[in-house]
Amino acid sequence: MALIVQKFGGTSMGSIERIQHVARRAVATHNAGNQVVVVVSAMAGETNRLLALAGQVTKRPHDREIDVLLATGEQVSIALLALAIEELGCDARSFLGHQVQIRTDGVHGSARIRTIDATPVEETLQRGAIVVVAGFQGVDEEGDITTLGRGGSDLSAVAMAAALKADACEIYSDVDGIYTTDPNVCERARRIDRISGEEMLELASQGAKVLQARSVEFALKYKVAIHCRSSFHDGEGSWVLPEELNVEGAIVTGVAYDRNSAKLTVVDVPDVPGTVAALFQPLADAHINVDVIVQNISFEGRTDVTFTVPRNEADQAVALANAAGAVHGWGKLLCDKQVTKISVVGAGMRSQPGVALRMFAALGKAGINIQLISTSEIKISCVIEDKYTELAVRVLHDAFELEKPPSERGV
Amino acid sequence: MALIVQKFGGTSMGSIERIQHVARRAVATHNAGNQVVVVVSAMAGETNRLLALAGQVTKRPHDREIDVLLATGEQVSIALLALAIEELGCDARSFLGHQVQIRTDGVHGSARIRTIDATPVEETLQRGAIVVVAGFQGVDEEGDITTLGRGGSDLSAVAMAAALKADACEIYSDVDGIYTTDPNVCERARRIDRISGEEMLELASQGAKVLQARSVEFALKYKVAIHCRSSFHDGEGSWVLPEELNVEGAIVTGVAYDRNSAKLTVVDVPDVPGTVAALFQPLADAHINVDVIVQNISFEGRTDVTFTVPRNEADQAVALANAAGAVHGWGKLLCDKQVTKISVVGAGMRSQPGVALRMFAALGKAGINIQLISTSEIKISCVIEDKYTELAVRVLHDAFELEKPPSERGV
Repeated sequence: MALIVQKFGGTSMGSIERIQHVARRAVATHNAGNQVVVVVSAMAGETNRLLALAGQVTKRPHDREIDVLLATGEQVSIALLALAIEELGCDARSFLGHQVQIRTDGVHGSARIRTIDATPVEETLQRGAIVVVAGFQGVDEEGDITTLGRGGSDLSAVAMAAALKADACEIYSDVDGIYTTDPNVCERARRIDRISGEEMLELASQGAKVLQARSVEFALKYKVAIHCRSSFHDGEGSWVLPEELNVEGAIVTGVAYDRNSAKLTVVDVPDVPGTVAALFQPLADAHINVDVIVQNISFEGRTDVTFTVPRNEADQAVALANAAGAVHGWGKLLCDKQVTKISVVGAGMRSQPGVALRMFAALGKAGINIQLISTSEIKISCVIEDKYTELAVRVLHDAFELEKPPSERGV
Repeated sequence: MALIVQKFGGTSMGSIERIQHVARRAVATHNAGNQVVVVVSAMAGETNRLLALAGQVTKRPHDREIDVLLATGEQVSIALLALAIEELGCDARSFLGHQVQIRTDGVHGSARIRTIDATPVEETLQRGAIVVVAGFQGVDEEGDITTLGRGGSDLSAVAMAAALKADACEIYSDVDGIYTTDPNVCERARRIDRISGEEMLELASQGAKVLQARSVEFALKYKVAIHCRSSFHDGEGSWVLPEELNVEGAIVTGVAYDRNSAKLTVVDVPDVPGTVAALFQPLADAHINVDVIVQNISFEGRTDVTFTVPRNEADQAVALANAAGAVHGWGKLLCDKQVTKISVVGAGMRSQPGVALRMFAALGKAGINIQLISTSEIKISCVIEDKYTELAVRVLHDAFELEKPPSERGV
């Protein structure tokens, strides 16, 4: 007998028919001899409906009360799902965040999970019932309702799986797993059977959707095996495994791209200690997430610094850097929003020094100029001109033969 | 500085505009130097919407999950009202049933309040904030959400007022108080300024709406003064006072009627010990609420027994009484559903023996035949033919001069 946590998002819970479908799936898993915990989101559209109501009341909503409001969405979901499971003749019992209990810090709207007391859930499972847990919500030390922010239900599911030492955490969505790259861009994209959490993290943070980065981090930390599956069919999906290994033996696991970047270059910066810190301090103070940073070699005591920031924060970053430049004496600031960061990710590249070269060669052969390069242990990223994004994705996918299973690739 | 509990029902919370209106009223009360606790129901229509969703999932809903579902209605209300109050520049803080905490028994759908720990509410009031409490809901010993049944928000408000030793519990609705009788039937009906809880209980249980009987019982027990007021204007309403006194000095306070009765007569009952018990035991077992009971004097060892039951339970009562009759040997059973119970209520009649006579005379003069009579300390009820209901109400209202203030009445 295995203990399975299943998570269904708002689309999977989007109508009574879909809720009944989720109920059948949970009961089938239960009847196959497993203990089942189902974590659900609010019905699709419900969160927006509630926010619209609040928007009619105030333009400056108080975070605490918004959390009280939004948490009702998941509460409706758990009640309806529990009723639907019982209608199928199986015992079910719903749990709210404060009943589980999912204890968080007090940061309303993006709270972080601190502890889970899984005892009441375990007792309910032992009585043979299916447990239905409200995702996205927790309770802080004062007993106030908190919510976990975007993708919070994934996190609730992974955290429940960790607390219960579950055998698997199944994340259901409308896609059947994680692909070697975006199938909308490259039709030869292949579903990955197994991927390490570390690789997943690089793919996710680079723009691959499916799983929220915080959930993967949590799964890595607490050794939870995640199975990303389709709500619509029974086939296997992709396993995200907590081992820090190259689980499929591939050198490159996938190609990710991030169109949400802007490239900033500060020219003629005095090459003296403390200058770069003076540039980045105001950006850090403004919570602007600086990504790739490259500093050229110094020439006559002056240098250039180039970095990327999220595109929607670029204008603010330019203003802050110019203000600092006026004090510290650096030159003009160039900003280019027409860039994409494209990355190849793979735990296997640690032991394969030729990967970067093959990436650069493939891009070069396709006539794509590389503007910036950044590397980590399991990722190589290049900033390129935005218009080449799709071409670059396909070129790199082909170059690393990602359409084939890892064992059949030439390299 | 007074501590005021204000309760607003679903109609008063029926739209964003109305919620903003409730917020203004609460803030005005607060700014007048009072501590304010607002207890609210779900927005009008919300409970039905939620029940319809559940109805699509199952025809046999599990009570526990229905309570989880329905409790979201009040949760949305408290969040929106707290936001609306804050928008007016006043601090507000919402509390759910389990946060207050309103502890109940575990009878889902009609739970009874056991205890309230008002400490967190008191602390919040002391910090100068308006407290917004979800009506209708509590939490049982296992931490499960319970709901209090119809009119439950009134009960929540009275219970909060009792726990906080509030100076008043204001119940807002679309009527401006309690009337000497139904104004739809008798246009001379007059708003009662002050009424004792005991009298209110007799009026309420006889069909006068406005306040739920359980709330009045609770107010009597815990000495809470209730002020029934209109949501739509600022004028005084009716005070329901916990003293067991004739608070206005009136002999008769009001006229109530109950059309939801049926009259059953068992003829030719053996007048031997135990027979009447044998008749009523099966009705009690079936939770049928037997009201007026009259037994005629015995004639040749046989008697008749007449009683009323709720009209929608009459057929079941007839079947049960007939089954018992077959065993115990009584005669045929007559059932008349075309009856109304009309009552005059007044704590002052205790010391005025002429009230019953005046009631009978007024009905007789109008040609209305009295079928059954039942009296208690502060109420005289007559069962009459249904079609005379409105006439009887007006005749009795006139006979006791209820259109005048108590001090100006002739008797």
